[in-house]
Amino acid sequence: MTDAALFTDLAIQPADIDAAAARLAGVARRTPVLTSRQADERTGAKLFFKCENFQRMGAFKFRGAYNALAQFGPAERARGVIAFSSGNHAQAVALAARLLGMPSVIVMPTDSPAAKLAATREYQQGQRDSEVVLYDRYKEDREAIGRRLAAERGMTLIPPFDHPHVMAGQGTAAAELVDEVGPLDALVVCVGGGGLISGCAVAAHARSPGVEVIGVEPEAGNDVQQSLAAGRIVRIDTPRTIADGAQTQAAGALTFPVIQRLVRRVVTVSDEQLVRTMRFFAERVKIVVEPTGCLAAAALLEGVLALRGRRVGVIVSGGNVDLPRYAAMLAGS
Amino acid sequence: MTDAALFTDLAIQPADIDAAAARLAGVARRTPVLTSRQADERTGAKLFFKCENFQRMGAFKFRGAYNALAQFGPAERARGVIAFSSGNHAQAVALAARLLGMPSVIVMPTDSPAAKLAATREYQQGQRDSEVVLYDRYKEDREAIGRRLAAERGMTLIPPFDHPHVMAGQGTAAAELVDEVGPLDALVVCVGGGGLISGCAVAAHARSPGVEVIGVEPEAGNDVQQSLAAGRIVRIDTPRTIADGAQTQAAGALTFPVIQRLVRRVVTVSDEQLVRTMRFFAERVKIVVEPTGCLAAAALLEGVLALRGRRVGVIVSGGNVDLPRYAAMLAGS
Repeated sequence: MTDAALFTDLAIQPADIDAAAARLAGVARRTPVLTSRQADERTGAKLFFKCENFQRMGAFKFRGAYNALAQFGPAERARGVIAFSSGNHAQAVALAARLLGMPSVIVMPTDSPAAKLAATREYQQGQRDSEVVLYDRYKEDREAIGRRLAAERGMTLIPPFDHPHVMAGQGTAAAELVDEVGPLDALVVCVGGGGLISGCAVAAHARSPGVEVIGVEPEAGNDVQQSLAAGRIVRIDTPRTIADGAQTQAAGALTFPVIQRLVRRVVTVSDEQLVRTMRFFAERVKIVVEPTGCLAAAALLEGVLALRGRRVGVIVSGGNVDLPRYAAMLAGS
Repeated sequence: MTDAALFTDLAIQPADIDAAAARLAGVARRTPVLTSRQADERTGAKLFFKCENFQRMGAFKFRGAYNALAQFGPAERARGVIAFSSGNHAQAVALAARLLGMPSVIVMPTDSPAAKLAATREYQQGQRDSEVVLYDRYKEDREAIGRRLAAERGMTLIPPFDHPHVMAGQGTAAAELVDEVGPLDALVVCVGGGGLISGCAVAAHARSPGVEVIGVEPEAGNDVQQSLAAGRIVRIDTPRTIADGAQTQAAGALTFPVIQRLVRRVVTVSDEQLVRTMRFFAERVKIVVEPTGCLAAAALLEGVLALRGRRVGVIVSGGNVDLPRYAAMLAGS
């Protein structure tokens, strides 16, 4: 397959990532890339951790949300944005809306981490017509709620992953990583609905031809792994896993074709492996990473993936975890 | 006082910091500088956190140790180095000795954090004539033990702070910070024996004329604050504080004159304020910081220092803390 054909008919193209990067310049953080001798010794690879836990609002989601909202026309801006999210997309949209001076309505599960709920409301403070709407993630359909509210209030719905502007924004994380450390042999990325990995796969393939992009899902929620095997989008029940950012039921109509084309394979890790990786990050790398943010690194550190001798980018997707819950996981209780 | 006279008769000069920086290039990490909107909002200042918790072996101490050991002559290298330390200096000397291929004997308190003991022994593994010697920090005099062993074994003693090469090495942290973010109005640094603050004060004044350098000690161990008031080095009993890196009894004969000349004042914070700051770092900045590493930031975040409207460098000195102890402090137990 030639380079030109590689991206044909996909929802986003390399140029979309570059345009997103220009929109995000001076607004999103250019997050640091950390390395760890212990991690390299343990895996035999050279790992580059792209630390999106240092991104504004604590996760990569700000990139996609801001890239989407910044493209609203004047009438859309006046009416505002609506979003449904298990957490980080909620904060991302609330913060981006605040920065762009527009109203936001955020539909969040009742069992969202308290820190994510509080942060979302904090970003909305003083913003006109802005509020959080709660729903039960095991009983209600968040997409239906979001669509109904969007219709009632005339607000534009920005979904958490299945939107070209969101996907392109997330891809800027991988673009920055390759631009900073040079070409990679592999890029390992967590997978929820596929927004991050699809954007990152396009950015990485454009900058690092031949790169092997690998997705990592929680064991309990391997819908994308199943989908790749089936050749179509498989929908599962909301998985029960500590990786709350990856509790999606299915990949998107836009993200899945990108994953099929540009992602070599998807592997899974257990919640136990995530907790051990969270401890490794605290003890050895000195960073706070939420369970979902540990997915990619866990696959490497726990030996699910063997990439000896290779230069591997690892997306650390976020660091938003309630402190008592985090302390309990570090303590092993 | 003219610039030229500012450093007269001090144990280290600006050129010593530059020479140390050249020795450390490609060996020590150039640690990232992080910012936090929440911290800026809370303090009204613009804070730049120099994150030495990301330094090799997890603390700034590597800078001074390597700078000192790299200047050993061939005979000294063959016999090796001896060091006494409450923790981070131990690891720093053990790692620097390993990198330079020399034996190391480290004298450590019996109640050192387990992680620091284990890491020190790990660095010594496979190194000839290398070992850890334990002592009781509340009963025995570590300096006497260190001097006796040095005499018996013909090894060179590198003290944790009162040595020009150690002081100059530590100063490279402030040098990098100012080189990266530009001139500072103030620089806030934790104070144990004064190695870090003396080196940083020389580097900061050389690069940022008129900078106000402020030291922070634990309430229970304010010997340097007392010494500045008395105009001479005051010695106290080993203080009981969670800031184990600042449990020193007195400043050094070389560090104190630098502090008298270049440090405007020293303030203190309580252990409770350190724990709250540690939580702030985990929750908001997403970094793991040991209690001693929280000293400088705590003075600002807890309102002990008011530096509204100013550009302030804050040294985050290290991140080595036993995980169970860290988890307990985060959980508030």
